[in-house]
Amino acid sequence: MAKETTSHLQENDFSKWYLQSIQKADLFAYGPVRGTMVFKPNGYALWEKIKTEFDKKFKASGVKNCYFPMLIPESFFKKEADHVEGFAPELPWVTRAGDEELEEPVALRPTSETLFGNAMSDWINSYRDLPMELNQWANVFRWEKRTLPFLRTSEFLWQEGHCAYATEEEARKRTMHFLKVYQETVEDLLALPVYAGQKTPSEKFAGGVDTYSIEAMVKDTKSVQAGTSHYLGTNFAEAFDIKYLNTENQHVYAHTSSWGASTRLIGTMIMVHGDEKGVVFPPKMAPIQIALIPVGNVKKNPEVLTRLEAIEKDLQAAGYSTYLDDSNNSAGYKYNEAEVKGVPLRIEFGPRDMENGQCMIKMRDLEDKEAVNLDDLLDKVASEMETMQKRLYDKADQFRHDHEHFDIDTLDQLKAHIKSCEEKGEYPGWVLAGWDGTEETEAKVKEETGFTTRNIPFEPAVEKTVDLVSGKPAKHTVWFARAY
Amino acid sequence: MAKETTSHLQENDFSKWYLQSIQKADLFAYGPVRGTMVFKPNGYALWEKIKTEFDKKFKASGVKNCYFPMLIPESFFKKEADHVEGFAPELPWVTRAGDEELEEPVALRPTSETLFGNAMSDWINSYRDLPMELNQWANVFRWEKRTLPFLRTSEFLWQEGHCAYATEEEARKRTMHFLKVYQETVEDLLALPVYAGQKTPSEKFAGGVDTYSIEAMVKDTKSVQAGTSHYLGTNFAEAFDIKYLNTENQHVYAHTSSWGASTRLIGTMIMVHGDEKGVVFPPKMAPIQIALIPVGNVKKNPEVLTRLEAIEKDLQAAGYSTYLDDSNNSAGYKYNEAEVKGVPLRIEFGPRDMENGQCMIKMRDLEDKEAVNLDDLLDKVASEMETMQKRLYDKADQFRHDHEHFDIDTLDQLKAHIKSCEEKGEYPGWVLAGWDGTEETEAKVKEETGFTTRNIPFEPAVEKTVDLVSGKPAKHTVWFARAY
Repeated sequence: MAKETTSHLQENDFSKWYLQSIQKADLFAYGPVRGTMVFKPNGYALWEKIKTEFDKKFKASGVKNCYFPMLIPESFFKKEADHVEGFAPELPWVTRAGDEELEEPVALRPTSETLFGNAMSDWINSYRDLPMELNQWANVFRWEKRTLPFLRTSEFLWQEGHCAYATEEEARKRTMHFLKVYQETVEDLLALPVYAGQKTPSEKFAGGVDTYSIEAMVKDTKSVQAGTSHYLGTNFAEAFDIKYLNTENQHVYAHTSSWGASTRLIGTMIMVHGDEKGVVFPPKMAPIQIALIPVGNVKKNPEVLTRLEAIEKDLQAAGYSTYLDDSNNSAGYKYNEAEVKGVPLRIEFGPRDMENGQCMIKMRDLEDKEAVNLDDLLDKVASEMETMQKRLYDKADQFRHDHEHFDIDTLDQLKAHIKSCEEKGEYPGWVLAGWDGTEETEAKVKEETGFTTRNIPFEPAVEKTVDLVSGKPAKHTVWFARAY
Repeated sequence: MAKETTSHLQENDFSKWYLQSIQKADLFAYGPVRGTMVFKPNGYALWEKIKTEFDKKFKASGVKNCYFPMLIPESFFKKEADHVEGFAPELPWVTRAGDEELEEPVALRPTSETLFGNAMSDWINSYRDLPMELNQWANVFRWEKRTLPFLRTSEFLWQEGHCAYATEEEARKRTMHFLKVYQETVEDLLALPVYAGQKTPSEKFAGGVDTYSIEAMVKDTKSVQAGTSHYLGTNFAEAFDIKYLNTENQHVYAHTSSWGASTRLIGTMIMVHGDEKGVVFPPKMAPIQIALIPVGNVKKNPEVLTRLEAIEKDLQAAGYSTYLDDSNNSAGYKYNEAEVKGVPLRIEFGPRDMENGQCMIKMRDLEDKEAVNLDDLLDKVASEMETMQKRLYDKADQFRHDHEHFDIDTLDQLKAHIKSCEEKGEYPGWVLAGWDGTEETEAKVKEETGFTTRNIPFEPAVEKTVDLVSGKPAKHTVWFARAY
């Protein structure tokens, strides 16, 4: 089994490994309607952790939560031409209620710029009403052809921030602020290293001016867009008439922005940290942080369980979420259970350990066990958890650097590189390359290699000077990669 | 203005008072689609408080959160005959996605017994999988003809618990447990006195066996069903094949239950505690608990503001949410703002107060102001908040008792009572009366008076022995009232 799943990680059968891993960890089930999924308790607990942390940071930034209706009239979409064009193919429509046909079909929200825009035109009157920074936690819908649990589903959960400002300068500054909040949170909480940068026009938000993203590299070296922040200019303000009276007594358009992060972060995290055995959760994210497992002949030594319960209490009092497996299964079975559930730290405790006043601890991402004196356990657990959180980040960062390519300067070189990887059964990684800023060259790379522009990183490791396709001077240095 | 709104509370123009109050408090806006609403930040903050408290209590009860898809296939509804009959008239249907007609229409969930039932049939195999107690926080849809913000909207927010048990006894016990959680939480947090009891068969959940509710009396003496808990028997287990292997190695049906509470709690709370000036929030619920308002000539005495800011910091450090109104408006305008927003405690502080080392405090629900020495302020605020929370509960409880009628034994007496109230411009209150247990008598009361059975209280103040309509021996003592 272990061998088979190893091969999934190494030999391009990554999606099989992913589905097996999230199934073994009991994170999801398929829903009855195409492309939908159930977030089972173990999976939903991950979202609750992400939500709690983001919510705290948004509120600390001055953002206020609210909740908008899910149903959007058809006429709203039509007010912003690019917006409707971008989203129309994926919109589910309610056309009937009870026995009654609706006069105007209403869509299930794919995102709520139109609804917030419509409301803000009522709510904003003067410069004193600005800035207005709102957020909602909601379910959204995009009828996708190809779906993958957590990564791409017809319905998913997310937060969407919608803001209005007096000036372009302020709107742009805050657009960057919320991108930074995303980056800091996923790096710290999910141990996900990401590259922040700007999307190219062909990949930006439908109806926006500029889109910024954070992009993570997962274990098959594809990229996942893990959060986006959009400067919308006055596009939605013009479509929905969001005007304010400025200090010079003129009615002028507000500048708006929006930003979102979703449950796909869960899939991303699993695809980054998982190993042959399945999911691996960073300590800060793990729904269960410590598994306590009695070993040896417990029936003959019932005190082992009593002592282990006391240890569990101490750990809980210190703030850890724990699970004591006192089932009748073998210790080996229990170890495996804790491993496939991604529990960061396992404590083994048997009669011999009790005699010696110690226990064994095993970190999910390391091979060796270590004996720990019970008196030192709390300190040891704290330091191991902290170290593991950092180690997972560092491993992911190393993996990403190991799969970054800076020396590919032409489309032919890229194609040769991909071919060579395929022959070796390796993943092709990301390529930092020059781009002349035209849609043509971007489209050609995509067509011939499946690589798309991920973003124009704010801080590229090197500056590239020549376009990959046209050979013309590069306007931007861009990450190219395959993506989810 | 104050006089006009007084009349709304007193002279049967309650819904106008309600709409004005929630508008002045800036709690909501109408959505663009019929019967939908926006929860504005002040309104959504109330839901966050309710959610946080319930969530804590559910988790402490062993419940696990999860999230199910919103879309339900038509075929699922048809599996439970009563269920589909009860909900079909209110279901919105998605029939199309993008340009593609769906093969099977899918409904927006009105509640999720069918989805949980379908999943539990997969997830439950043996007695070891039981009990299974799940909950989700979600948006739900019921296409209502008559809507009222917070109370009855096409889309609303709620939590729905769905549980499966090995035995009827356990299922019934836990059904009662979650009703008790509802009762304790709304009494403690929302300061809402409620009567817990059982719904009559005509008012029970479509597809269930027994429904229990908590019912609150609002200021126009209508009843609001503020939370329900249903014992579903094996109805959904049979419809969705939820069977488990018991300890005798037999496959038998599980017993299921469900329970829900929604954003209508917000409307209920406002309708119970509001007064002539608008909304009044219990201290534990108030998004802003303390308004700090500088008075007198602040421009000449800028130190007033500095001191007031220091006072605010102390209050925030003590855990209160505060608002310091340093706008250019008059003190009177600011007082009114704080009042219509329902802020429980107002602090007034001016140059004279500064000299005397004191401030004035004014509780939202009392007439008089009180001078408080600044050294005593924190203690005073704490005790006033606690007292106000209790006072609001007691006032509501007194109001309810003042409008309960125990001496109405026939339909004619009820009609005479209603007529007399109408002539006096009074609300008719609730009537505790005998019921012979037949649908006919219940229907007749409803038809002739608009009074419906609210519930059969667990602890009626008196036992009634004769049916209101038939004159036959009463099987139950029932609350009759008009309801939202």
